[in-house]
This record gives sequence, structure tokens and C-alpha cells, in this order.
Amino acid sequence: MHSSFVYLYLQDLKNKDAPVTLSPFDDTSANALAKLLPPDTLRPTSPHHLEEPRGRWQGRSTHVALPRNTQEVATVVTFCAQNNIGLIPYGGGTGLVGGQVASDGPAPLLLSLERMTAIRATYPLENAMIVEAGAILADVQSAAEDQNRLFPLSLASEGSARIGGLLACNAGGTNVLRYGNARDLVLGLEAVLPDGQIWNGLKRLRKDNTGYDLRHLLLGSEGTLGVITAASLKLFPRPAAQGTALLEVTSPKAALDLLAIARNQLGDCVTGFELMHRTGFDFLTETLPDIRQPWPMPPEWSVLLEISLPRGLDPLDCLTTLLSDAIDKNLVSDGLLAQSQSQAADFWSLREHIPLANRAISAISSHDISLPLSAIPEFIALAGSMLSALGDIRINCFGHLGDGNLHYNVFPALGRDRADYDALRDQIITTVHDLVEAMDGSFSAEHGIGRLKTADLERYGDPTKIAAMRAIKSALDPNGIMNPGAVLRPL
Amino acid sequence: MHSSFVYLYLQDLKNKDAPVTLSPFDDTSANALAKLLPPDTLRPTSPHHLEEPRGRWQGRSTHVALPRNTQEVATVVTFCAQNNIGLIPYGGGTGLVGGQVASDGPAPLLLSLERMTAIRATYPLENAMIVEAGAILADVQSAAEDQNRLFPLSLASEGSARIGGLLACNAGGTNVLRYGNARDLVLGLEAVLPDGQIWNGLKRLRKDNTGYDLRHLLLGSEGTLGVITAASLKLFPRPAAQGTALLEVTSPKAALDLLAIARNQLGDCVTGFELMHRTGFDFLTETLPDIRQPWPMPPEWSVLLEISLPRGLDPLDCLTTLLSDAIDKNLVSDGLLAQSQSQAADFWSLREHIPLANRAISAISSHDISLPLSAIPEFIALAGSMLSALGDIRINCFGHLGDGNLHYNVFPALGRDRADYDALRDQIITTVHDLVEAMDGSFSAEHGIGRLKTADLERYGDPTKIAAMRAIKSALDPNGIMNPGAVLRPL
Repeated sequence: MHSSFVYLYLQDLKNKDAPVTLSPFDDTSANALAKLLPPDTLRPTSPHHLEEPRGRWQGRSTHVALPRNTQEVATVVTFCAQNNIGLIPYGGGTGLVGGQVASDGPAPLLLSLERMTAIRATYPLENAMIVEAGAILADVQSAAEDQNRLFPLSLASEGSARIGGLLACNAGGTNVLRYGNARDLVLGLEAVLPDGQIWNGLKRLRKDNTGYDLRHLLLGSEGTLGVITAASLKLFPRPAAQGTALLEVTSPKAALDLLAIARNQLGDCVTGFELMHRTGFDFLTETLPDIRQPWPMPPEWSVLLEISLPRGLDPLDCLTTLLSDAIDKNLVSDGLLAQSQSQAADFWSLREHIPLANRAISAISSHDISLPLSAIPEFIALAGSMLSALGDIRINCFGHLGDGNLHYNVFPALGRDRADYDALRDQIITTVHDLVEAMDGSFSAEHGIGRLKTADLERYGDPTKIAAMRAIKSALDPNGIMNPGAVLRPL
Repeated sequence: MHSSFVYLYLQDLKNKDAPVTLSPFDDTSANALAKLLPPDTLRPTSPHHLEEPRGRWQGRSTHVALPRNTQEVATVVTFCAQNNIGLIPYGGGTGLVGGQVASDGPAPLLLSLERMTAIRATYPLENAMIVEAGAILADVQSAAEDQNRLFPLSLASEGSARIGGLLACNAGGTNVLRYGNARDLVLGLEAVLPDGQIWNGLKRLRKDNTGYDLRHLLLGSEGTLGVITAASLKLFPRPAAQGTALLEVTSPKAALDLLAIARNQLGDCVTGFELMHRTGFDFLTETLPDIRQPWPMPPEWSVLLEISLPRGLDPLDCLTTLLSDAIDKNLVSDGLLAQSQSQAADFWSLREHIPLANRAISAISSHDISLPLSAIPEFIALAGSMLSALGDIRINCFGHLGDGNLHYNVFPALGRDRADYDALRDQIITTVHDLVEAMDGSFSAEHGIGRLKTADLERYGDPTKIAAMRAIKSALDPNGIMNPGAVLRPL
């Protein structure tokens, strides 16, 4: 008996991927954890904690911890580490890949950052700001504006998404072309690692070469390597003036050529470049008829262009020069230049309501993909013909063209229903993702892996990278308590 | 005996920090490895491989591998992994913290990327470029220029530094203010991990949220987590026009106020902002009298300002507006606006020769530090008075003020020698670094840790971060073969 015990023990130690069984967070755990925290820090979950925007998963957690400060977060994480209990860090709940809900396995504890919303400090001279993880993105943007600065992260859910979750998921959005993804906007982090230790990495330095970049490892790890509790964010000068145009382009290739001309003329002053297909406008007409559309007949392809300028340049002049060039080259056939901020906001509102219209129609499958810029026209042509060969479908293709990021969504034909395509769905998804892979793109541009795309990661991910990811996860979170089942499935 | 063996084995497995003894790369290893590689891939080291710019360490490696492609790099790494031999990835040898030389311990093999210099592909439409790790920075810049694009990484050693080493060390330089550090210029990497596996992460996507960011983990790890073999780099539109000015500022605080006004007026068009103290010009006069200086008497503090503009703005107009405002506010007392590219190059040449002059004078200690921008005037005042209290010294303080990065170098008084200060040196270093730490700065802004600053990392680094770094190192490189002794010293 003894030697066999030793043997098993050796096997466990050698086999780092040996499955560890987590315990559920139940009433007994709740009683024990409650004693370590101030009153009312632990509560039963509310229904909204257990849902997610796509309605695909239903969470099973019974309790949510609502810490007020980083030390309380550490207490919660330490408790879960010591008791082998899964833990899901919870932000605004707006993620689109199920990273915030575990619908199977032992019920994890939710850890919501919603009480940690302080803007701890702003440093306008340094273009920096320290905020707690629970701050809502729109409030972070406003706090920057109050200092005459820009925090450029911007996306449709900014009124409810919290900065900690946005950073943990490396959110994208509409300003990536000029300012980068969420990870590019972070100077430093404070986080609680899976063993409950607090990492204070909140420096607000532009240069700090002191060891491995733990910051970038946590950013984009979707809560599987620790809980972000606060961040030191980069701010930017606010542009002196902005110009916005809604342009009918003659093809996706013409849109790319327009982007190239715009960047040749205006360099990095091109801050937004969104492609939209007619289907998006049709869906708006169908589901949100109150949204005023600028065209009697929407064009097949259009571009929403935004430029942000330093003092001394006039947006309408710059756009007029650009457009006359683009019209001469037959790239643009018609266009509207916003004459006021409110008109610009109307153009953006069109773009930002397309996802809502999509949700009302209900997609067979949604693809958040990215491609090398120059491959995009070919991808759109090929994917369209391959999918049409599979069945009678509609495609709504739109997105952040400047970043090579398309939201490529497949819908039932008019009058038919999502469920009619249940048998086809996997084939549609595989067709899209295989083509993306063949063209050196990514099957998840900005939404992340969550629970929706773990199988895609296994299928398309570089095996060396995945092995390294598993080694890192295992090193920092040996029992796999942090957001179990997200990003990496247990082997 | 048997059970004691098992016990020891368990201890080894449990104690991840158990010291592993590496074997030297000797003639026997050379014979064995040579059989796995094409002829002439393995050579005896040349003297230049064993030196470093500061002359503090002398390497002990007897052999250097010169692979021609990634597969050969993998062969070398696999051999070292299997035989427990240390390996130092070697770029241009320009690092300033001894990351490229091991002066003690079993002699490691050097792995030079100097034969892998191809620009594999350029994608001007995508603002991307794929280069091999051995490409020299100046050649990468030229290849971008050939496509009418900008690769903004720029520093004094760009004529000999190789891109792989620059990325592994997350180099900084003069364009960080606008374009970020080396890590911010990388879309993807190809690398050989410590187990010899090739990671193909060379995508050229702006958005790719598919798992942990291995790229940023390798960037800045100084060759301790793998060998970068190629990179997908970001390119930028070239500015339509640039303006350069050399300005006498009334104080470091005035320099910061000038930066704020410049950014308010010109936003991100401010691309260079270098602070220089008079000592730098005095040293140039003393050691490099052929360099023409623009002033009869150099000012106490001066700023080298560069702006990069889109079409439609005139650099001299912009600079004139800025300067008249700055003079009104008593920030700038005198200034020179470059009237030609060659005059602009002369201004930059002054700045770039200061490190050479420093080397000729020979510092007691050199500090590559960064601070929150607003703390810099106080740091300069405090550090100056604290050091002067220790002894008769000269300070040359200059650097990338826009990034909060100072090269704060301490020199012997005129007529005295570096060796006269041997007894004081540690106290000087500690005084500077303690003050930096107290002001929330970094003791290594852009040079990295290498072998010079491992003790500083242990002293000033966040303990949770260091523990995480050790766990990651141990997970990816369990026997510690990659650049042994750099960044993390064995426990």
C-alpha cells in the first residue's frame, strides 16, 4: 500500500495536468467566508449575475462576493485558494463569449467589482489616471474629459461595461486604429493573483523595464490568472477638432484604398474607419424603425470615417480634399459630411445600433474575426459564396475595417428561423473559421475566448503557444480556481 | 537506498526552486552539436562576443552557434535543453546591463542571430513588415522607408543593434513619447521556447484575442524565456513634415510646462522631447571638441523638441506659435529652430553624442531611471543635493523627458578619477535608487535588468510580481537554460 501511494503521489506531481476537482461554493462555504468579511459583503446571486447577453449560458453560482477594497478581494481569493473553490471575477457582465458564467461544474463563487468604482487619482500633466476595476467605462471617459483629456477606449456597451472586465478581456472597440486595444492603454495594474497575494503594479510610468510584463499577461487572460482590482491608465490630449463622414464606397477593396489615401493624407489623424454592409441598414429598418437613416436606399457598402485633428487644420477642408480625391479614383460614389457634432453622433448611432438589430433578428452564428487588411476583399467574396452554397442565408458583415476586424454574422433567410439552421450551424462556423485560419486571420479578434471558443482555440491555436499557456496557468493557478473552464478547458 | 532515492526525487519535484546545475558547453558538446547542424554553423567565439559596451563583464563562452534559419535555432535550443546547457541569445551586443555576457558559472553556448537578417516581407497597405531577428535596426528602418512607411524605433546604437535583441529587451529610445516602446511596435513573434519548440505567432493582425499574450511575455524577458527568431512589426505613415528646435528652458519644471503646452497645441504631433543639462555640453567640449556646438555658452537646461505633422501644417509656423507662447510664459529664454533637415540632424547629433562623451569621462555610476512626469523637478533637486552631500561629484542628467526617463549619471569631480570613488559608489547608487523608489519611479526605465540590476530587482521589485516571474520562468524553462543568471538570479 505504501509504495503504491508514493507512486500515485509521484504521478500527480509529475503530471501537472492531473485533473483537480474543485468544490462548489455552497452554504457551508458561505458561512465560513462571511466570517472573514465585513457584513453584507457576501450575498445570494441575482438573476442578472447568471445571464449573459447572448442568452446561451445560465450560470449556477449561488453567491456573489462584493468586496469594497483590494484587501477584501485578497481575502476572498485566499479563501477560495485554500478551499479549492472556483472563482469568477465579474465586471459589467457584458462579455459576448460566456467568460462571466459557468453553466456546468461545481458552482463557483462570483466576485463582483461593482463596489470598487473609485477614480483614485488623475494626473493630467502626466496623461495618467488611476481607477478601480469596477468603474464603468463611460465614467472613466468622463473623468478624463473633466481634465481635458481623452481616454480613448470606446464601444457600444460603455454605459455598463466595467474597466476591470474590459482590461481582463483586452476589449477593442472603435478607436483601436489610432489608440490600440485596451491593453495598449494601460500603464500599470493592481491585481490579486490566484494564491491571494496582492500585486501592486500601479506605476504610472511610460518606461519600466524591470522584469517580465505581468501586466500584459493579466490583460487578455479573461480572469483566469488573477483579479484586476485597479489600473493606471494612459490618457491622451483631446483632439482640437474632429470630422465625421458617412460614405458610399464602391466595394470593400475601394474602402481599403480609401483608408490608404486617408492615411497618406492625414497620417494618424484617421481615428475611425468602420465598414458597413447594406444588410445592417435593412436590419435597422426591420427591427428599429425609429432610427432615422440618412439614405432613401442604403448603399451596398458604406464607410463611417472619423478624423481627429490638431489645432490649425479644419475637418471639413480635410474631408473635402480627401473625398474629391476618392471620388476621382472611383472609390466613393456618394457621401455625407457631418455638419455638427449631433450629426456625427447620429452617424455613429447608426453603426452602434447594428448589433442590437442583429440581436433582434437572431443570428445563426456570429463571428468576431480579424484578417490581414489586404486579405479582406477576398475573404468577403469567398466566404459569401461558400456560405451561400450551404443554404439560403443572409450575411451581415460590418466592423472595424481599419483594424482588419469584421463582425461577420450569418442570419436565417427572411421568413425563416434560427432553429431551422440547427443542423447547418456547425458547418457554417467551421467554414468561416477555416477560411479565416487559411488566410492568416484570427477567429477571435476582440471578444476573446471565454467559454464559447475554447474548442476553436484548441483547433486553431498554435500548439506551442497553447502548451506555454497551460504551463503558465498551471504555474500561477495550480488548482485552476480562477474562472474555471474559461479560455483553457481542463485536459 | 530505494526509499531514500524516492524521497529525494519527491523533494526535487516539490521544490521547484531546487538549484539545477548546468553543464558547460565544452568541446565534447561542440562535437555532438556540430553533427546536428550544417557545416560551419558552430564556431569558436570571437573576442567581441565576450565583451559588452560598459566593459564590466568578460564572457566565458567558448563557442557561438550561427544558425541560418528557425529550424536550426530549434535544433540548438533542443540540444541545450536535453543536455542541460546554458544558452545566451545574442543580438548586436549593444545592451548596457550585461544581459549578453555570463562571466561566471558553467560556460554557456552563445546563439547569435547574425545570419538571420532577412526582411521576409513588407505589407505597406497593412502597415506591417516581417523581419528576422538578426536584422539590424537601421536596415529595418530603411526597408520601411523604401515603402514610404515609418518604423519608429530609434536609438543611438541603431547601426549595430539587432531587432531580436531590441525586442527581447523592450528597447526604448527617442520616439517612445509618440510611438511607445519596442513592445508596442510588435504585432507578432516567432520564437523558439526553452524546450526547443517553435512558436509561430507571426500574424500581422491589429486585434487577436486568442489566449494569453505570449508575445508580451517574451518581449522584455531578455532572452530568459526563449529565443525570438522573427517579428511582425507595425509600420506607420511617415509624417508629411517635421520641425526641430533646440530651446533653452528656464528650469526642468519649465521644460515640463513647455511639454504640456506643446501637447495642448499639437496633441500627439509632439514626437521628441529630450532634456539636456549643461554638463552634457561641457563633456562634449572636453572629449569631442570636433562636434560643433550651437551656443557660445551652453544653457543650464535645454530641450530638444521635435514635432511631426500631417499635411497642411507648417512646422516653422507651429514652432513659432508654440515658442512665442512659451517665451511669454517665461518657460523658454532662447531657442534655435532648425531651418533644414541637416540642421535638425545636427541638433540630434548633439544629443546622441552625449553618451559617448560620458563614456570618455567614465561615470562613477549610471542610472537609467524613470519617474512620474510631475515628480521630475523635485527628483532632480533632491538627488542633486543628496549626492553633493556625499562628496565632490559632477552630475550629467539628460534623457527622454517626455517619457519621464532620465539618464542620471554621476561623474568624478574635474581632475579626479572613477577609482577615487570606489568606496562611495554603492552609497551613490542606493541613494539614487531609493529616491526613485520613494517617488514611485523605476530603477530601470529602458535598459532592462540583465546581470547589472538583478540585486536591484530583488530589492525594489514587488514581491508578488517576483514570485510570479519565478513561477513563470520555472514553468517554461524548468532547468534554467535560457540566459542563466540574467534577470532572475538562482535562489
